[in-house]
Amino acid sequence: MSASHGARPVPEAAARVLRLIDHAILNPDATEEDVRTACQLGADLGVATVCVQACWAKIAVEVLQGHTTRPASVLGFPHGANTTEAKLIEAITLLETGVVELDMVMNVGWFRSGRLDDVAEEISSLHLVCSGAGVVLKVILETGYLTDEQKVEAAALAAREEADFVKTSTGFGPSGATVEDVRLLHSAVPPHVGVKAAGGICTLAQIQELVAAGASRIGTSSTRAIAAELGVEV
Amino acid sequence: MSASHGARPVPEAAARVLRLIDHAILNPDATEEDVRTACQLGADLGVATVCVQACWAKIAVEVLQGHTTRPASVLGFPHGANTTEAKLIEAITLLETGVVELDMVMNVGWFRSGRLDDVAEEISSLHLVCSGAGVVLKVILETGYLTDEQKVEAAALAAREEADFVKTSTGFGPSGATVEDVRLLHSAVPPHVGVKAAGGICTLAQIQELVAAGASRIGTSSTRAIAAELGVEV
Repeated sequence: MSASHGARPVPEAAARVLRLIDHAILNPDATEEDVRTACQLGADLGVATVCVQACWAKIAVEVLQGHTTRPASVLGFPHGANTTEAKLIEAITLLETGVVELDMVMNVGWFRSGRLDDVAEEISSLHLVCSGAGVVLKVILETGYLTDEQKVEAAALAAREEADFVKTSTGFGPSGATVEDVRLLHSAVPPHVGVKAAGGICTLAQIQELVAAGASRIGTSSTRAIAAELGVEV
Repeated sequence: MSASHGARPVPEAAARVLRLIDHAILNPDATEEDVRTACQLGADLGVATVCVQACWAKIAVEVLQGHTTRPASVLGFPHGANTTEAKLIEAITLLETGVVELDMVMNVGWFRSGRLDDVAEEISSLHLVCSGAGVVLKVILETGYLTDEQKVEAAALAAREEADFVKTSTGFGPSGATVEDVRLLHSAVPPHVGVKAAGGICTLAQIQELVAAGASRIGTSSTRAIAAELGVEV
């Protein structure tokens, strides 16, 4: 199934790359028009999802209605330092709205304080809510705050609590996705758990390297430029 | 009532400045130990509040028990783009925990899209929850995303919805507090509404300028250095 934009079909090789992409529109000053434009672009290109801030979920669900591209959103974004109650209510509100993928930020402060039970309980409770509704749960580790050992430990913890994906970065932290981190996370989780690379990804070459390292999903806001590299213009 | 640190009393002139300060420990990688240390520092210096991420509210309440310095936290921090439901539940959880001041981030995306009713309704519902519990509500406008005209309009809107303070910035946005912005916000709200300057404040001279421009509260994480300028060492 290829995506289409207007009349021209997208070549299958390009469509395969585009289907890896979560097109992100997460800057806090984005307007409704920005969000609608981003959702339409995602739908036209046939990306996997368009990922919007929680307050724009209804708009994403509305614009993506009837498209293969699905609406996605974020929880506790971008610091992850909210209460678990707030993340849970946000998840419930979003899945009721029709969002089908949720990227939650792990509580990095708790993790770095050794409060692993609190981190695990939060992910586990979100997993319960999401899996009951058939919603994909991704756990953002914000690797820029972690040592290599902590990255492995956090990824394994998220996988134990049944995250569907572990994700490198929010795009608002101290670093973005690196090939090394993707390789590390990929080695730390069982094969059924995906690795999403996000943060600072703006070229096709980067995507190819990250996929070779084990990434099965790519978060980027540079989707239009990447599509152009693939010969797809919308 | 002067704050004390160990045996030495803090001179009243210094205590007056310190009582203006919300000591912030909001970096997302802060550990429990960092938060405990920040709360103890705030208590020793007799600042107004120590402001922690929502996930650390219990710790702040515990450490500040019996001190004049009060526990404060944040809602929808730092992007403000959460659902209203999530901000509300976070407020309720935090006030049940014992937090007595809450700095919420206005939904800048909604504001910039002209969805002023949504922005107002969110602030209004948070005001209801906070005022019922005697909790001070501050509305962070994140002025770095706004034109001067929008700053005035947002401040007036927050005041109409009965915010206790309007606040310039999160410290994680595109700009921090400026003398011009404080003057602008101060002129846009009635006299009973305070102006909190925050973001990039690290010297006593800055505080003096911002207070002269109309700030009645200062958010900073450089409290130790500012206290040292005041001749207070802890």
